[in-house]
Amino acid sequence: MVDTVASSTSAASAVAAGTSASAGKKTGGRASAAPIGAGVEPTIDVEWLGRYLLGTWAEARLDARRVTARPELQRVEGQSLAEHRQTVFEQLHYLVREGAVNKAFPTRLGGQDDHGGNIAGFEELVTADPSLQIKSGVQWGLFGAAVLHLGTEYHHDTFLPAIMSLEVPGAFAMTETGHGSDVAAIGTTATYDPDAQQFVINTPFRGAWKDYLGNAAVHGTAAVVFAKLITRGVNHGVHAFYVPLRDVDGGFLPGIGGEDDGLKGGLNGIDNGRLHFSDVRVARTNLLNRYGDVSEEGEYSSPIASPGRRFFTMIGTLVQGRVSLDGASTAAAKVALKIALTYATQRRQFTAGSDTNEEVLLDYQKHQSRLIPKLATTYAASFAHEVLLTKFDAVFSGKNDTDLDRQDLETLAAALKPLSTWHALDTLQEAREACGGAGFLAENRFTSLRADLDVYATFEGDNHVLLQLVAKRLLTDYSKKFAKADVGVLARYAVEQAADRTVNGMGLRRIAQTVTDHGSTARSVGQLRSEKVQRALLTDRVETMVAEVATRLRPANKASKKKAADLFNQNQNAMIEAARAHAELLQWEAFTDALAKVEDTGTKTVLTWVRDLFGLGLIEKHAAWYLIHGRLSPKRAQAVSDYIERLTARLRPHVLDLVEAFGYGPEHLRAPIASGAEAERQNEAREYYRELRASGNAPVDEKSMKKK
Amino acid sequence: MVDTVASSTSAASAVAAGTSASAGKKTGGRASAAPIGAGVEPTIDVEWLGRYLLGTWAEARLDARRVTARPELQRVEGQSLAEHRQTVFEQLHYLVREGAVNKAFPTRLGGQDDHGGNIAGFEELVTADPSLQIKSGVQWGLFGAAVLHLGTEYHHDTFLPAIMSLEVPGAFAMTETGHGSDVAAIGTTATYDPDAQQFVINTPFRGAWKDYLGNAAVHGTAAVVFAKLITRGVNHGVHAFYVPLRDVDGGFLPGIGGEDDGLKGGLNGIDNGRLHFSDVRVARTNLLNRYGDVSEEGEYSSPIASPGRRFFTMIGTLVQGRVSLDGASTAAAKVALKIALTYATQRRQFTAGSDTNEEVLLDYQKHQSRLIPKLATTYAASFAHEVLLTKFDAVFSGKNDTDLDRQDLETLAAALKPLSTWHALDTLQEAREACGGAGFLAENRFTSLRADLDVYATFEGDNHVLLQLVAKRLLTDYSKKFAKADVGVLARYAVEQAADRTVNGMGLRRIAQTVTDHGSTARSVGQLRSEKVQRALLTDRVETMVAEVATRLRPANKASKKKAADLFNQNQNAMIEAARAHAELLQWEAFTDALAKVEDTGTKTVLTWVRDLFGLGLIEKHAAWYLIHGRLSPKRAQAVSDYIERLTARLRPHVLDLVEAFGYGPEHLRAPIASGAEAERQNEAREYYRELRASGNAPVDEKSMKKK
Repeated sequence: MVDTVASSTSAASAVAAGTSASAGKKTGGRASAAPIGAGVEPTIDVEWLGRYLLGTWAEARLDARRVTARPELQRVEGQSLAEHRQTVFEQLHYLVREGAVNKAFPTRLGGQDDHGGNIAGFEELVTADPSLQIKSGVQWGLFGAAVLHLGTEYHHDTFLPAIMSLEVPGAFAMTETGHGSDVAAIGTTATYDPDAQQFVINTPFRGAWKDYLGNAAVHGTAAVVFAKLITRGVNHGVHAFYVPLRDVDGGFLPGIGGEDDGLKGGLNGIDNGRLHFSDVRVARTNLLNRYGDVSEEGEYSSPIASPGRRFFTMIGTLVQGRVSLDGASTAAAKVALKIALTYATQRRQFTAGSDTNEEVLLDYQKHQSRLIPKLATTYAASFAHEVLLTKFDAVFSGKNDTDLDRQDLETLAAALKPLSTWHALDTLQEAREACGGAGFLAENRFTSLRADLDVYATFEGDNHVLLQLVAKRLLTDYSKKFAKADVGVLARYAVEQAADRTVNGMGLRRIAQTVTDHGSTARSVGQLRSEKVQRALLTDRVETMVAEVATRLRPANKASKKKAADLFNQNQNAMIEAARAHAELLQWEAFTDALAKVEDTGTKTVLTWVRDLFGLGLIEKHAAWYLIHGRLSPKRAQAVSDYIERLTARLRPHVLDLVEAFGYGPEHLRAPIASGAEAERQNEAREYYRELRASGNAPVDEKSMKKK
Repeated sequence: MVDTVASSTSAASAVAAGTSASAGKKTGGRASAAPIGAGVEPTIDVEWLGRYLLGTWAEARLDARRVTARPELQRVEGQSLAEHRQTVFEQLHYLVREGAVNKAFPTRLGGQDDHGGNIAGFEELVTADPSLQIKSGVQWGLFGAAVLHLGTEYHHDTFLPAIMSLEVPGAFAMTETGHGSDVAAIGTTATYDPDAQQFVINTPFRGAWKDYLGNAAVHGTAAVVFAKLITRGVNHGVHAFYVPLRDVDGGFLPGIGGEDDGLKGGLNGIDNGRLHFSDVRVARTNLLNRYGDVSEEGEYSSPIASPGRRFFTMIGTLVQGRVSLDGASTAAAKVALKIALTYATQRRQFTAGSDTNEEVLLDYQKHQSRLIPKLATTYAASFAHEVLLTKFDAVFSGKNDTDLDRQDLETLAAALKPLSTWHALDTLQEAREACGGAGFLAENRFTSLRADLDVYATFEGDNHVLLQLVAKRLLTDYSKKFAKADVGVLARYAVEQAADRTVNGMGLRRIAQTVTDHGSTARSVGQLRSEKVQRALLTDRVETMVAEVATRLRPANKASKKKAADLFNQNQNAMIEAARAHAELLQWEAFTDALAKVEDTGTKTVLTWVRDLFGLGLIEKHAAWYLIHGRLSPKRAQAVSDYIERLTARLRPHVLDLVEAFGYGPEHLRAPIASGAEAERQNEAREYYRELRASGNAPVDEKSMKKK
């Protein structure tokens, strides 16, 4: 991959140089009006940036990219449901043979106890086929990980080897038809029978069928089944059980039934299905008993006294799915932008400034505005993901594994996963449209990736539900600060204080001033380019929104359950918006931290523009809020938008370097429109017309005759 | 269909009544704080509204819905590319047998000369299968319509009967690999050879291959080919030629070659492909010669002297594609909302206000905010489409067919098609996510419809290119007003005047005032509910934006071609945004006009809320603009958002009636989650727990034990 970057950089730079000349001219006029960066055009050290983006688990990523470069692992478009499922199943065996799936498992069982590296590599599978990524995730990230994290040594020794080798493909049977987001309310029961020393698993009604489970329709021969554990007449809440599903011939074992979920909007390489259980008996020891156990006599015990905390600890292992979706979505956005921006620098349409020369798409302002801000967001998401992955590894490796660390990890994942999964969908769609009819052909990847990634927005935690979790955490932290005091008063105080601090401390009062007296737009945006000011504006918004919501929720403390619920519901939109603002700030902080470690001047200059585009883009998106709350003057808000347009144009000569640094080669893009074919076609057409004009045989235009 | 509405209304009303009780309670608390509508809850006359939405061509729509209700015409999910293509081809023959395709053709050839009815019926095909809609559109709306509108009597007599009967399936060969939006720049040539009295058609380079043509890959045996007509050494620009493609065995005729476009992101029931021509000869009379002809000797003549106007007249026939995409997209949004809102009133998740009762999804504020504003936009799009279709029929029937009428029609279509096609994609996506995993199953329609409609955003005119056309028209109209004067000065004057007029004439000065003195939010939004104020705010924004852009473009008149192009490019985003604002205003006006004709008080009350939600939603979306331009005070802008939340909740009890009025029955929805199955599952689960509690055998919750 290092070789890939090195060898392809020169080609990209050549193209970039070719286009940057004309773009330089284009933006030159603007730059003179209000220069962004002075003097010589900066240059990105693409090879260095490429390595930097690979992050801590660079080797795991490069290993995975070498694997995903192989055609045997890549999506074959147009396969039938059955063919695609079979192909992906075989690809999983291929991954086993490559030793690509065992990193997270214990060293003593042949794994490497490498949690960060495991996720980094797993995420990269998305460029080969998202079905391959998710089916691997089902087998080793959910089914296997549940045995690893919820089970104990007996389960590891007994079940993990066959899971790691794919001898036992399995399902993660948590979601039910009737309960997705609200896992605590699932209907499946596991009742302990002390005489037989067995758990009896039952599905009491149709809504309690397990549903949408990968590996359930065809390949799964076992499952980790989540059910309410009942012993001695007490319901101890959701626990996980290892349950064999099918016999050697693929038929369901007695008491088990199911259905195929059939065709889906995407990810059809995975055999999702439904399962139901009628008096299915498993041994007492099949309870994955790390956080809750039942003695032979039926006595329940747990290291975690609170049923609520126990539940959240158990489903906390799900966080690794969220972490990996965050990374995979960002990878997909990178692929989409590399394809669309490559095409945008080669494709021409309409003559505007000349009679014969058609314009390159990316020289149009609208085309820049469609794609370049999305490139900035992708950089932010990429750096934020590295922070998340590092946190994840620290917790799962046990390096920093306190309750607070786990909570922070879960909040961080719940904040970032919604933003990155939605961003991937938006980017794939914008890229598709920006490539017109060519973008709609399956061979050019956008439509297929988008169809597959669609469900990332609602699985492993519905995005809105996750953002609500973040909001609750923000509110809890907020109320802790003022636990002893009257929160109502303090909330108001905090709003004022926050506003005051940011306004005075960060020079925001000057920002909020009307700036007509300054005259030039260039000067009026000057301060907005400051890191401190961007941070202050973004932070202030989060703090103010949280304080506002907290104040409005204050009466809930003394209200009936119903009244309190109504009050929460009336603030649901505001809570979700506060959480989103918090997540955006996290991305901005991650980008800014990453920027601090860049040493090369040219790279730092360009990346600072990218970060500013991201930060100011957020401020523009929420301009109404800043205006309503008096944090920006009308003139300044207008200046933000004007400056964003200029910044976007300023980045135009650097986009090919910026996407080259993502490190995906033709073997990962596999899009004919990004292969250089478009440039060849354009050159051929231009050459044809040039020769025709030179020959003197060109027909005369009726139009030009009329003019004479 | 009238029967459908009548019979299913009672069921819908029953459900609506059931849910409106609880919702009424929910919103009651808010209503007392700031009442929206006083007294008794209004009732929609669903049957009347259903008929009203069907519009002028109600019978054509109902006929088409009876046809699309038949399983033989409906999409079979999971078919292979080849199977799907074959199915749709056979469905086209089925439509021919039904006499469903000839409405737009001349009565003397067995048609009905009914242009509006034809499009109305054609749009409805989208609910059966968008591939069926678009393949029909290719055959009769593009290929056949080109012969009809660009040809003369000879072509009608010679070619139309076989086109109407599908004896000759054909392609509309306009787009080339190298030129989509810029049709005037296509490379294909048709050079007249007076000796043979033939045109010689050639593809000079790879970029000039015809591409993305429906019917080209497999079924087409002829095509209307767009090429630059060259005779006597003069290039007369793009003209259309009738060109046979394949022999009886399906092989290409001499000189013709092509490729299959292969799998696409959607619409795979259509065999899109590429074509190229090497010295392909067709008779002189195969030139579709309505707007330009060549004599036997090779002399060119045209009833339209200006080559530019001639070109736009010829491609103006394309407008019917845009009209129908506008209607079909709106129909798809209706289907999506009916499915998602039905599910949202049945599905329950999380207990909030009670220990045992889970909340219905649509009682969550966020769920209301996700879907109900989209319902309002769909109503606006539906009424706007009726205006567009009426205009289209008047022009194409010859009733009102001046140049100005045609231009108005083209501008209207170019304005509405982008909004409705994007709206359909957004709505399908939001609906998909709002239904979680169930929304991702192909059987529930969203993913499949979205995949198919994706390309509607870029075909028959890329949405951004269309909005630019609208902007140019707005600027032209604007400059005409001040043709004799110094535009620079007048532009500034107009901005001031417009601002002044709206501010003073419409009471906007009061709106813009700080309203802290009024105290209550209820009173501060009072004026915003006024139709006049909404119109003034929306109109003012369009006028001001156009005037601003016009002023900035003023120097282009005296600049070099290159400088002028750069100036245009630097204002491209602003132009597109002005066009979008104009289109939104058109939708709002159409909704408001439609509202004026509603007599039933209850229906009118609820629809007024829907219109207000749409109008205020636009103002909220553009709140930053209104704040920056001093048209709204910060407090008032905040009040708009607060009021929108209340209005959304206020509409919650009426959503089932509002989607019922769309008139689509189960035979059109075909989504298991909207079939009532979810309500059955919920009832079964609730009954199970009720009985368990009543039996005394329910296990005790560990949680509740801890509390004691």
